[in-house]
Amino acid sequence: MKVSVIRLGHRKERDKRITTHVCLVARALGADGVVLCGEEDPQVISSVEKVVENWGGKFSAKYEKSWKKAIAAPKKKGECLVHLTMYGERVQDVIGKIRTVAKRKNIVVAVGAEKVPGEVYDAAEFNVCVASQPHSEVAALAIFLHELFQGKELEKKFAKPRIAIVPTAKGKKVIGKK
Amino acid sequence: MKVSVIRLGHRKERDKRITTHVCLVARALGADGVVLCGEEDPQVISSVEKVVENWGGKFSAKYEKSWKKAIAAPKKKGECLVHLTMYGERVQDVIGKIRTVAKRKNIVVAVGAEKVPGEVYDAAEFNVCVASQPHSEVAALAIFLHELFQGKELEKKFAKPRIAIVPTAKGKKVIGKK
Repeated sequence: MKVSVIRLGHRKERDKRITTHVCLVARALGADGVVLCGEEDPQVISSVEKVVENWGGKFSAKYEKSWKKAIAAPKKKGECLVHLTMYGERVQDVIGKIRTVAKRKNIVVAVGAEKVPGEVYDAAEFNVCVASQPHSEVAALAIFLHELFQGKELEKKFAKPRIAIVPTAKGKKVIGKK
Repeated sequence: MKVSVIRLGHRKERDKRITTHVCLVARALGADGVVLCGEEDPQVISSVEKVVENWGGKFSAKYEKSWKKAIAAPKKKGECLVHLTMYGERVQDVIGKIRTVAKRKNIVVAVGAEKVPGEVYDAAEFNVCVASQPHSEVAALAIFLHELFQGKELEKKFAKPRIAIVPTAKGKKVIGKK
């Protein structure tokens, strides 16, 4: 199973940091890449690429001007589009079904910034909520990936890092250099 | 068990949205309140209070000028301070121990914005990482709370909401009005 993330509706000024968090969470928690829609923002892409360079593993970050194209792509490729929204079905109710689908299809997870167009709800095979409360697309993505991978994403090794952390109870243990 | 969150090192311009996400994630995923340190930012607090007003439940958001005081408070009150940091012990290795502690002590979870002072690492009973990779304090907090509550936080009911969502496969079902 491959998992990728689509970030919808990025606004350069307002969303720079949140979108960067979305990308880094996707990478850290087991996704293979991210597609950014909305305003073009090479800074976000280059800061994600820098993290990949330093911290290892494979992860792609690309820009797609047309969100309609980005949202239509999964169906064309036989992939399963999951849209994370506070209005969707509860993740705890549907994650089993999605894990079953994931055995035969790649999963594409869409998260929105500004108001998400109705077409996204229609295009999604699953509209999924992580708590029907306003909070954060960063958190929703994290919990969704954690549930999809059943915690195994936390064991992921990132190939050929320049820098890596040795988990420790106090202080900081770092191997290598940026 | 009560759970609260300390947000360290908030910078008004840079962190407004991320700090707001931290607060809303704390609320949505079962914490009882948040203490904000760093630059004073009444806007963040009022936007969190507005969410509480509209979406129900009890949740407090307070400002504490002195992060040293905020960090020292848990020990004085017999609470357990957990510091989320990419350098800490792996959440999957220590969450069992923390759940045991949580049976007799309240849990206070600290997440940093800018570089966190060494004193925080020393004051924490647990320094915990969610993947030893750079990503997002919002995501780390979400996964930590999800693991601490073992998914039960997603069943939480928020008392007396003005507005609530009925989870649904397509579209939006909302009850009430802001």
